[in-house]
Formats: sequence, C-alpha cells, structure tokens
Amino acid sequence: MLLHASVSLGRHSHRKLAALGARSISTSVSQNDSAIGFIGLGQMGFHMAKHLQRQSDVPFCVYDMNTDAMSQFQAACSTSTRPNIDLASSPADLASKSSVIVTVLPESAHVKDVYTGSSGILEGIRKETLCIDSSTIDTSVSVNVSKQVIAAGARAVDAPISGGIMGAQAGSLTFMVGSQNAEDFEQAKLHLSKMGKNVVRCGDLGAGQAAKICNNLLLAISMVGTAEAMNLGIRLGLDPAVLASIINTSSGRCWSSDTANPVPGVIATAPSSKDYGGGFKTRLMLKDLGLVANAAKDTKSPLLLGSLAENIYRHIAGNQTMADQDFSVVYQWLARRSDKS
Amino acid sequence: MLLHASVSLGRHSHRKLAALGARSISTSVSQNDSAIGFIGLGQMGFHMAKHLQRQSDVPFCVYDMNTDAMSQFQAACSTSTRPNIDLASSPADLASKSSVIVTVLPESAHVKDVYTGSSGILEGIRKETLCIDSSTIDTSVSVNVSKQVIAAGARAVDAPISGGIMGAQAGSLTFMVGSQNAEDFEQAKLHLSKMGKNVVRCGDLGAGQAAKICNNLLLAISMVGTAEAMNLGIRLGLDPAVLASIINTSSGRCWSSDTANPVPGVIATAPSSKDYGGGFKTRLMLKDLGLVANAAKDTKSPLLLGSLAENIYRHIAGNQTMADQDFSVVYQWLARRSDKS
Amino acid sequence: MLLHASVSLGRHSHRKLAALGARSISTSVSQNDSAIGFIGLGQMGFHMAKHLQRQSDVPFCVYDMNTDAMSQFQAACSTSTRPNIDLASSPADLASKSSVIVTVLPESAHVKDVYTGSSGILEGIRKETLCIDSSTIDTSVSVNVSKQVIAAGARAVDAPISGGIMGAQAGSLTFMVGSQNAEDFEQAKLHLSKMGKNVVRCGDLGAGQAAKICNNLLLAISMVGTAEAMNLGIRLGLDPAVLASIINTSSGRCWSSDTANPVPGVIATAPSSKDYGGGFKTRLMLKDLGLVANAAKDTKSPLLLGSLAENIYRHIAGNQTMADQDFSVVYQWLARRSDKS
Amino acid sequence: MLLHASVSLGRHSHRKLAALGARSISTSVSQNDSAIGFIGLGQMGFHMAKHLQRQSDVPFCVYDMNTDAMSQFQAACSTSTRPNIDLASSPADLASKSSVIVTVLPESAHVKDVYTGSSGILEGIRKETLCIDSSTIDTSVSVNVSKQVIAAGARAVDAPISGGIMGAQAGSLTFMVGSQNAEDFEQAKLHLSKMGKNVVRCGDLGAGQAAKICNNLLLAISMVGTAEAMNLGIRLGLDPAVLASIINTSSGRCWSSDTANPVPGVIATAPSSKDYGGGFKTRLMLKDLGLVANAAKDTKSPLLLGSLAENIYRHIAGNQTMADQDFSVVYQWLARRSDKS
Repeated sequence: MLLHASVSLGRHSHRKLAALGARSISTSVSQNDSAIGFIGLGQMGFHMAKHLQRQSDVPFCVYDMNTDAMSQFQAACSTSTRPNIDLASSPADLASKSSVIVTVLPESAHVKDVYTGSSGILEGIRKETLCIDSSTIDTSVSVNVSKQVIAAGARAVDAPISGGIMGAQAGSLTFMVGSQNAEDFEQAKLHLSKMGKNVVRCGDLGAGQAAKICNNLLLAISMVGTAEAMNLGIRLGLDPAVLASIINTSSGRCWSSDTANPVPGVIATAPSSKDYGGGFKTRLMLKDLGLVANAAKDTKSPLLLGSLAENIYRHIAGNQTMADQDFSVVYQWLARRSDKS
Repeated sequence: MLLHASVSLGRHSHRKLAALGARSISTSVSQNDSAIGFIGLGQMGFHMAKHLQRQSDVPFCVYDMNTDAMSQFQAACSTSTRPNIDLASSPADLASKSSVIVTVLPESAHVKDVYTGSSGILEGIRKETLCIDSSTIDTSVSVNVSKQVIAAGARAVDAPISGGIMGAQAGSLTFMVGSQNAEDFEQAKLHLSKMGKNVVRCGDLGAGQAAKICNNLLLAISMVGTAEAMNLGIRLGLDPAVLASIINTSSGRCWSSDTANPVPGVIATAPSSKDYGGGFKTRLMLKDLGLVANAAKDTKSPLLLGSLAENIYRHIAGNQTMADQDFSVVYQWLARRSDKS
Repeated sequence: MLLHASVSLGRHSHRKLAALGARSISTSVSQNDSAIGFIGLGQMGFHMAKHLQRQSDVPFCVYDMNTDAMSQFQAACSTSTRPNIDLASSPADLASKSSVIVTVLPESAHVKDVYTGSSGILEGIRKETLCIDSSTIDTSVSVNVSKQVIAAGARAVDAPISGGIMGAQAGSLTFMVGSQNAEDFEQAKLHLSKMGKNVVRCGDLGAGQAAKICNNLLLAISMVGTAEAMNLGIRLGLDPAVLASIINTSSGRCWSSDTANPVPGVIATAPSSKDYGGGFKTRLMLKDLGLVANAAKDTKSPLLLGSLAENIYRHIAGNQTMADQDFSVVYQWLARRSDKS
Repeated sequence: MLLHASVSLGRHSHRKLAALGARSISTSVSQNDSAIGFIGLGQMGFHMAKHLQRQSDVPFCVYDMNTDAMSQFQAACSTSTRPNIDLASSPADLASKSSVIVTVLPESAHVKDVYTGSSGILEGIRKETLCIDSSTIDTSVSVNVSKQVIAAGARAVDAPISGGIMGAQAGSLTFMVGSQNAEDFEQAKLHLSKMGKNVVRCGDLGAGQAAKICNNLLLAISMVGTAEAMNLGIRLGLDPAVLASIINTSSGRCWSSDTANPVPGVIATAPSSKDYGGGFKTRLMLKDLGLVANAAKDTKSPLLLGSLAENIYRHIAGNQTMADQDFSVVYQWLARRSDKS
C-alpha cells in the first residue's frame, strides 16, 4: 500500500518538476558532458554529494523529488570552487547527461521507480554509464534493477553504506560493494573513496546488500544480547562498568558491548550515554531487519534469534520516542520496571 | 533426583575412603602444617593443581571422590621437586591441614556437599583459612556457601574460570573473582596467578560467578547469531571468508565471528575448522545457560534471546555427537538440509 | 526472483495456449452467454470446480496455464448431465464470457498476473461480473486486485478456503469472505455453498484473507505449543493419551490437542497417527506464515511467538520429508534424540 | 535466598506458635481421634477447607503459620453443625492427630519444610495416614517428599488444583492426581470430591504435578498466541468479535480464544472484559512457568515457544499493575502504542 503510494508520488513528482521548468537550469550542462549524477539528497545523500562534488573535476548534476533539497544543495555548494550544480528535471534527464550515477534512496520501491519507472534512469541512460546504488534495499530487487541497467548497455554496482549520518558528514563511511567484475568495482571505488574511508568488494551483484544486512542482523542480535547480559549482571549486583570491562576482554566481547554499550555511563561516547541520541535509530534498524526477513524467506534460511530480535524492535518501535532513539535503547525497554501500567 | 544421588554418593565416598585407610598417607603432613589443599582433580582441576603444586613452597594436599584421580595426581607429581602429595581422606581432613583451599567441582550440589555436607570442609576448617572456589555454579549457592565459610571464622572467594582445558594445561586461565574485600582478593590472586594469566576482581561475594555467566550468556547469543548471519550470507551467495572479514571490521564483529567463527575453514584455529573439536562443549554451554536461567529467575530478569538460545542448545544436545562438540556446531544444526527424515 | 519468473511464465503460457488453438473449443459458448468461469485447476481447484459445475445450470468455462489440467477436467465432467466444458484460451477470454469468475491460485504473484497481467481477466471483464478469489494470498495484494476489478465496473470478493484437499473433495470447505457489501457476499455465497459447508462474511474487502491468516497463525503457535507440552509430559512419565485427555478438558485445550494431536496414537484420525500423512503440509503452513509475516510488517504488529513458530517451521522444512508431512510433525522434530549427528 | 528465608520463617513460626499456647485448643481432640488435618489456609486453602469441613463427619484440625488465618477459619466455621475446629500447634502436632492430611502451600520450599522440616508432618505422622498435597510445586520435589512420607509408613498423593479462587469458593475445582496405586487415588477422591467437581488420576506419584504444568505451559503459549493473532487481525481491520467467532469454529480455536479471549468486549465473562480482574494473575502464571522450566531442564526437553512465553510474562510482570491482573493482559502489553517513552 505504502510502497505503491510512494511510487505514484514519485512518478507524479517527476512530471510535476518537469512542468515547473527545471529546464532553465539543466541547460547549463550540455548533453555531451560527462557529468557525475547524484540522486537522493536526503539525510545521508546530501552530505555524501557534497563530499563527492568538492572532490570531482567534472560537472555535477543532482536530482531529488523534493525540489527544496535541490535548492539547498545548490546553495551549499555556492562556496565551492566548482559552484555550478545542474538540477535535473527527472532521473531520465540526469541519466542523459551522466557517465557516473550515484543513487541514495530510502526503500526498494524508490529504487525501482527511479531506475525503471516513468522518466526513470533507464529512459535516459547512456552506454557504459556506471550506476552506483548506495541505498540499502532488498537484495533481490537490487540484483534485478542492476541486471536491467546492464541489459541497457550500462554498468551497475550495489554499494550500501555503513556509518550513519556522522560518517556521511565526516566522509568516513564504509561501502560494501557488489559488482559483476573487478573493473566495475575499481571504477566505483574511485568515487566512493571520496565519500568514505573503506570500500570493500563483497562479491557479485547484490553482494554489497547481502553483506550489509548480514552484518546488521548480527548487530541487532548482539545488541539485544548485550542488553540482556548487562541487565542480568546489574540485577545480580555487578557494577556495569566492571561487567563491561570483563566481557570486553572475554569471549562475550562485541561491538555492542565495547563501543556502543547500551547501559548509560559505561562508554561516554556511546549513544546510551547521550540519552540514546546520535546513533542508529530503532526504526532504521527495524527497516534493515525487514530486509533481512525478506532475504531469509527467499533463501529459506531459518533465523530464530534474528526474527525474535526483529519483533522485539517492532514492539519497541510502537513507542514513538524509542523509535527515534538509538537501537541500544532496547536496554531501557528490557530493564524498565514500573509501579503502574 | 540426579543431584541428590550425587550428594549421597559423595557422602558415601568420604566414609568409604576413610575406611579404606587413606590415613597412612595423610600422616605425612602434620596437623599444624599450613598446606595448600586442592579438591576436585577432574579435567580442569588436575592440570590446575599441577601448576599450583609446582610453584608452591608449602605442603600440598589433595582430595577427590575418585581415588584413582588422586593416585594419578600423585604419580604425575613424582618428578616434581616437592614430590610429597598428601592424599586427604575427606574434605574435612583436608581442611584441617590447610590454610588455603582451592575447589574445582562440577555443579552446585557438589560444592554444597563438599563444603557443608558430612565430612565436609566446614567440619575441619581452621580460622583464617582462605577458601577459593573455582567451580562455576549458581550465584545464590556460591554466596550462601561463602557466607557459611565466613561464619565459621574463615574466608571465602568465588573465582570461576574462563579458558577451558587448553587454558588449564597451559596455565593461561582467566579467573573472575568475587570477594568481601580487596585483601582476600589479593591473597587469592597470589595463588590463582600460578594457574592463570588474568585474575580480575568483579565485586563482592558471588560477583565472579555473576560475571562469568553474564559473559557466557552473551557468548551463547553471539554464537547463535553469528551462525544465523553466516548461514544467511552463504545462502545469499557470499563467500564465508569474505563475509566474516566484513563483519569483523564492522559493527557485527564479535569473538564468535573473529576468533571462533562457526563456519569451517573461515578461521583455521577455530574448533569449527577441526570438526568442532577442542573447544567448549555444547553440553557445558548448556550447563552454564542453566545457571543463567536460575539467576534470571531469582532476579526477575527477562531473557528473550537468552532463553531461546538455551533451548536451541538443549535441542542440539539431544544429538549425542553434537553435545560433545564445540558449541559453535549450532551452525551445522542451523544450516543442515536433508532429503529425508 | 521466483515470483517474476512465475509471472513471465504465466504470460508466456497465455499466449502459447492461444496460438495452439483453444479457440475451436471456446466457440461452443457464445460471447453473450452468462457462464461461470473457473481459473486454477490445481489440487484444490480441480475438486472445487467439479462440485460447482455439477450443481450449476449455466455454461461452465475453465482456464489453467497447464492445458493437461483442462483436458483432465473436461474428461472428468464427461459423465455430467452438462458435459460441455468451455476451455478458455486465456483469463481474458474466460472473463469475456463469464458473469461469475472463481479463481484458486497458489501465490500473490499468480493472482496479480491472472487478473492484471497481459491477457488477464481485466482485459476481458464484463460489467457487473462477480470475481471470487479463493486463493490464500497477501491481504494487501488481495485488496489491491479487488479494487482494480471494482474500478473496471465489476465486483470482487476474497474468499480463501479452510479445509484442505479432503474438504475440497468432500465439498465440505469453509470459506472466509471479505466483501464490499452484503449483496456481493450473498451472491458469492450462492456459488461457494456448492463447494463448501460454511460461508462466513468476515468484513470488508481483504477481511477473508485477514481472518484466514490470523487463524493459521494461532494454529501454528498452538501446534508447536502442543508438541512442547506433550513432549515435556511424556518425558516426565505421563501417558500421552491421559495427558491429552486432561488438557482437552482443561484450559490448555485446543484443536491441535483435541483433534490433530501431534503425538502418534493419541487420536486415531489425526495425521500423526498416519505417519503425518493426509493433513496440512509443513511447507503450506510455512507459506501461510509468510503471508502472516508480510501482514505483520505492513501493520507493524509484533509477533514474538508467531515469528519464532515460522522460523521453526522453516528449519523443519529444510528436511524434505518433513516438508511434505502434516505440520504436526513438529513433534517429531522436537522430541527426536539421536546417538550421532 | 528467598526460599531459605521462607523456610527459616516457617521453622520459627512453628516454635513460636507452640510457645504461645495453642495447646489449650488442641486438647479438644484426643490423640487417638482420626481427624482430617488441613495445612495452609491461604486464598485457596481457606475456601477448600470450609467445603471439606462442612461435609466431613470426623474431627477437623487445621494449621497455618499465620495464626490469624486459623482464628478466622475457626470463626467462619462457628455456624457449622460441627463447630469445633482443632488449631494445631505445628504440622507435627496436626499429623499426630490425623488420618488424612491435606496441604495447600505456595511453593516447593514450603512443602519441603512443612513435611520434612523441624516440627514437620514427618515428625508426627501416623502409619497409614493419607497425605494429599494440593500445592503446585516442582515435580521432582513433590515425588521426593511423597517418597519420604511413604518411607515413614504412610501414604501420599499429589493433587494440584485447577480452577482458581472462584473454583475454590464454588467447590468446583479440578484435581489432577498422581498416586502409587488406584486405592490411594480412590481414598483421596472421597475427600477431594467435597472440594471440587473433577478428580482425575494422571498416573504415578508426581503425575498430578506434571499434568498440571503441561496444561499451563500450553495455556500460556495459547494465550500469547491468541493475543498476537487478535492484535494482528484488529490492525488488519477485522472486528475482534467477528475474528474470534471465526477462530472459535476453525482450527485456531482454543480456551484462550473461546472462553478467556484477551480482547476486552469479545467475551463478556472473560477477565479481559473486567479490566483483567478476577482471573489467573500474571505473577501466578509466571510462577507455574518457573516450575515448567525446572521440569524441562531436568528432563532435557526443549521448550522454544514455552521459554519465550515465560520470559514475555517476566517482562510484563515488571509492571506491578499487570503482575496482579489476569495473564490475558499480555494483549494490552502487545497492542500498546505510545507517543512517548
């Protein structure tokens, strides 16, 4: 339901934007220029595009359904040494001008629409263009869209991101890349390394998506597990910092314990010590666990702890405050006791 | 049922051994000597006692329900510079000669019996003797027994072990210690450091037990989670070594992935690469998860993933082969597909 | 992936069949006749269509991608008092001749394709035709397709089935119906009551699907729960028949205990007493739990026991024999112990 | 910890009561009379004892640690045709006068203490006395205590209760009985049928306990499952009463859906329709699930849904209000959404 609504909105917006005359701007880059195109100027994409634009020597073209985001991006680049930003009227328009396209979109349906929908990338794509999709979406959708790009004579890699908004701002993201061959990976790496620190090839098409969701599956389980272990230890009378230090030098050690420990005060830089702010929101973890569930169903992989963790996060996300806090807030959910309902 | 049977057997054995004339040996150490006493010469204790005996300058006294184990220990020490090992006729007998007592026993019931049963330690204990219990048992039982030792005018610490048989042989164990005060801890450390590398004070009485089971709870969850994530990734087409390397540098990293990865071939030194041999047996993990469950019930701590992990291991342990393999064998259980039942 | 493949195959088959000349047969019913059309002559649909055909006074038209199934159906009806069966060349062809259409298809993708695909029902549908979809599919897909039917000037109800192949043969099925209004329900009931005993209106469009999957969710949980309780009782020494009789007159009673008890021998007519044959296959339960999971994700409904039950069945279905046995075989999975791996 | 405290308190109270002079009352029944003795005048026992006393022709003797409870019971019986109630000074005192003893106590530790502790039943028990323990406790403890009774020359059955306080008041309880032989069962039934409607022999010693906890395990799972299915259906737009009626005539039907449906308003007589009052309290269900967990551990029976249900109830019971509401309140826990934490 929701997805179809989004898709329709997407199509509508493309047309609407074209009608509103984005043409006047888009003429600033000729059809034959080899621009870098960037679609999706959201919380992640905005910062990423800035890093990429500043470090690239070719024309830069952007598109977003939200025209305000495009204007803001243009304004943000006005102090750049290359201030001319081409605002495309549609993904197809952007594709017609670009030899490299980076997309950063929220969900599978948006990626499908932006690539294969009306006025989508496939309608304007040029031979040999490299499409880099940094969205985190269903592995099956990612592979399917990439194959359509390749069938159109262009090239595609999936390159989902790890590192969050902080990493996007700092240009320190990790990209997990799936590509048909090493050459596509190497070319994508040239651009991705301008937005992040680590660019890792995970395998064939879809492998970037697969690696990312497998990592996040284990992350979700480890975090709930750390919350359970810390809560038990505290109730048994242990000092949380002492317990964490023991776990962190023993076989229970994990990122959720030694870097993002969910108990406030144990690690000063962890979201839990900042009222669960500034981390990876519960509702985003829940979204990724939905991708995990789809992949598990497709491949008939049993996930006993994984599916339970997903549903715990779904329960937690019923609380609007917690849905927008770092997912380590599961500790609060677990440990809370109250006198009344 | 089982426990009561063991306890009865224990009592019986104490008496039987006394009747069989262990006296002739025990006269080799006078009542007034300040021996180190060691009770429990099982797979762990045997190696630990050897390390401790070789590095101690005082008489050494041992007790085990199994007289063969005592004879074997005596033989194993015959090449020592201090070859005289006193074989006690009962825990009480041992206690009457010792100023330090180390116990390494399988379950809560054995600890209760050896300390508080007929012919138990409390019947022979001297003022000021330091009792170091390195068994992994119920936190509540541990605290209770320690308090009885203290009420008898002696001192007690709990010091469960991490590191397994390999660590016991190598003298590289970690001890997690709970003690009433820093002084008891420091004295215990003098002895424990002869059997291990790390000796950590976790807090008050019982804190050693608590820290150990909290660590193992998180370990059990992380291992099942790693198995689920690796299985999903492999079925999605990822190379297991590549997936592990990505996880190990990302937020999913944990000991179960980077040190004991459950997929054969990923880490050459892991039990999974040795047909799940040489690690921490499934049935021992299951035993520890039983202690976790007791502590969770006592403290009313919800364990959603933890209790599921316990029951997964209980299901796996129904297979005798897997019960005796390293607990990372959960990956095989999860990933297995078959054509017939 | 799989779904797209199926859809393509579907489209291809429609065209192929048309090319092969199903026309010669379809001329036996004129365009203006008000036929009953039936699409999907699989294990369920075949028997249902026979019941409906024998009790209907109007021309009967069928379509299936598998032309053999159509021939077999025609042969099976040759002894009927109304032996003329129209074999349609496509869903569109069938729709052009029918005032009532019943569809019984395996998955959401097939329903989407048969209704909205190339040569689909919507291409041939007549005003006022009542479409009855008895497939068990995603609630969101069901509502979406029904709305497209209605937008085309026709009418639609969802009417998924409970009762299995035995019920289809015996004409004793239960239909759970979702309809826009009571009138559509009443007209659908006229036809559905020829194939089943109970026809219940569950609410608005999609309500039939919703009710069915909610029932099956609870069924799956109850069955695993019954298996756990029976296994525990048996291991505690209880006679399974005595335990079942106590549960069945107490607060634990449920269909899974009193009608389909998973322990062989407790209920003679249960699949468990027939080597888990003749019931509701594990892989079909798993399919329905997949629909449950989709609905839960769409509505943000936490399913803690439900998602665990789904993943237990996914684990069990990795065994090909068990995948084709009645889903009460979970008892065997749970209770099995073995000496070797 | 807690249990030991209770036990000590128990011992203390026995002595205290004796010192306070219960003797003057107990002389009203001679040592040789064959009284019925009743120990445990709590919420259940008080009502049960009244029913039994009114229908029995022999002297009636009671004991409770709480002397007020005894006084209240005496007062409550003052209008009886047999108003003389003997208040025993200890379980031993009561046992010395009784040929039948009924015990209704809260936990395993209390049963152990009342039977085998200082001034306990075993210190005063007569040959041939039939001990009927209607407490719900650990199966292993129950069997152990019964065997000690039998070893003392008396007889024992376990007869835990189903039916709650309402059933105790109405005299409509169900008793699940474990006995060594049919004769003991028949004699126990004579007395139990005065307090309840159904008296069922479940098997050998301990079988009553085993049957009860297996039933309650399935009950707990069914209730959480019903809550999940109802919540999903409601969020999909179904009317809860319609959904319940469909489930109740389909394969999902169970006591938790058709008798105690957890959604308010579906069934007028269910606790959910009375603000979750008047049923089986969450904390009592949690206690029974603790007995289930012990039995599962002893018998190595995996409980995947069962242990998850236990931990869900443990989480819920962290809320004091819900801990004292009927356990169907799990629906509220599951369905609740909030704007803030």
